[in-house]
Amino acid sequence: MPELDHGDPGDAPSTAAPLTPVADVPRRTAAEEARTLVAGTNRATLATLTADGHPWASFVTYGCLDDGSPVLCVSRLAEHGRNLDDDQRVSLAIVQPEIPADPLASARVTLAGTARRPAADEHAAARAAHLDAVPAARYYLDYSDFSLWIVAVDRVRWVGGYGRMDSADAPAYAAARPDPVSAVAAGAVSHLNADHGDALLAMARALGGYPDATSATCTSADRFGLDLSVDTPRGPGITRVGYAAPLTAADGLRAATVELARRARASA
Amino acid sequence: MPELDHGDPGDAPSTAAPLTPVADVPRRTAAEEARTLVAGTNRATLATLTADGHPWASFVTYGCLDDGSPVLCVSRLAEHGRNLDDDQRVSLAIVQPEIPADPLASARVTLAGTARRPAADEHAAARAAHLDAVPAARYYLDYSDFSLWIVAVDRVRWVGGYGRMDSADAPAYAAARPDPVSAVAAGAVSHLNADHGDALLAMARALGGYPDATSATCTSADRFGLDLSVDTPRGPGITRVGYAAPLTAADGLRAATVELARRARASA
Repeated sequence: MPELDHGDPGDAPSTAAPLTPVADVPRRTAAEEARTLVAGTNRATLATLTADGHPWASFVTYGCLDDGSPVLCVSRLAEHGRNLDDDQRVSLAIVQPEIPADPLASARVTLAGTARRPAADEHAAARAAHLDAVPAARYYLDYSDFSLWIVAVDRVRWVGGYGRMDSADAPAYAAARPDPVSAVAAGAVSHLNADHGDALLAMARALGGYPDATSATCTSADRFGLDLSVDTPRGPGITRVGYAAPLTAADGLRAATVELARRARASA
Repeated sequence: MPELDHGDPGDAPSTAAPLTPVADVPRRTAAEEARTLVAGTNRATLATLTADGHPWASFVTYGCLDDGSPVLCVSRLAEHGRNLDDDQRVSLAIVQPEIPADPLASARVTLAGTARRPAADEHAAARAAHLDAVPAARYYLDYSDFSLWIVAVDRVRWVGGYGRMDSADAPAYAAARPDPVSAVAAGAVSHLNADHGDALLAMARALGGYPDATSATCTSADRFGLDLSVDTPRGPGITRVGYAAPLTAADGLRAATVELARRARASA
């Protein structure tokens, strides 16, 4: 849904409020959301400046250093390569790879910063980071017109879809880590919805504040918990249920959701 | 394969040349390639300028006017909306929706130009163009912070993958039309490769210049013909075979490929 500060034409749907108290389940910070998106693909759009100061958007591939700095491999024969040689101010837009039917519901991030050629002692790490993310780069990375560029990120703007957006500064971005659950989350969500609707309903009723829920669907999973959408006789609602403890590895997700289901049924 | 003007480190694979004459089959112009890509999706990355002149890349949705001018619907609450209010110089990068395993083999285009708010007599067409391409925009298009912007395209840079790239000027872009075959091409290519490998081999041998081909795969289909990759005892090769006449509608593709197969077998 749009944020409250949009100029509402008056037809936004209303949602049913929870009826019982709901535990506050942490969410990923904007920096962590950004690091998770950046780690989740190898394709971005680069914005550079042409010689006459016009903004220039172009497709690029990237890998990442440990601090989340993107590493590009760009040909000087391409317009963006010539732009970078002249002006190192850049930004990168990265969008979640699987775009939903409503494209503006996608999660995306803009990283603004300054590009630099790797210093001698950075080159091996930059090369390895790019090749690790873009294996096909082995065919062209050593052509003389291709150069590696490291983007030092100054400013991060994350948009998680409608009404979810925040900024992060450079230290927060560098210190954050990609959510370890992200790579397996979509599969887990599909499995929960296909085979465990009863468990999701129990979670929504006992833990999510909707004792009158008639059905529940999982919309996303992260290292802290599950987002649920529910139907009630009062209308639709959304809620969130948390694991016993935040996850530190993808392989903990199954046990954490089993524990959630068990806890929900014990509270019923 | 990289272009010849890349600094070749010496390990580029070689391909087998055709052994018999091959008819010259037209290809889409850069302007037509651009119009086809732009018509094939509703998602782009916009490059704008921040107040201090930094390039800013951000995800947007778009529709198109009949002349290929993109129509954006942008919130003033978003950074790119504020940028547009201050400086209307923009570019849009649009990438083919299905990205191949090697991302730099994707087709993509950059449209550079200037954004303007629709004039009174343009507003209805711009609104309809955006809604036609982005049905979900009906939920927010009339919020007071959202505005339509038409991008007048000044310059087009198309990249069709490795070694295929060209520019188009504004009149050529406006006059070109999307390839009508594009929407059904991927399905047709899959079908030809799955069920008609013998017909593709006959085309490669009789029409494509490779009488020694041992197998043939269709890599793309457009309104003029089919691109084929072949295996021969001399190594791999690529060729192109043309329909009896260029197609003007998607539903002509099946008959055109049937005629190609018949002609190939008659020439064998």
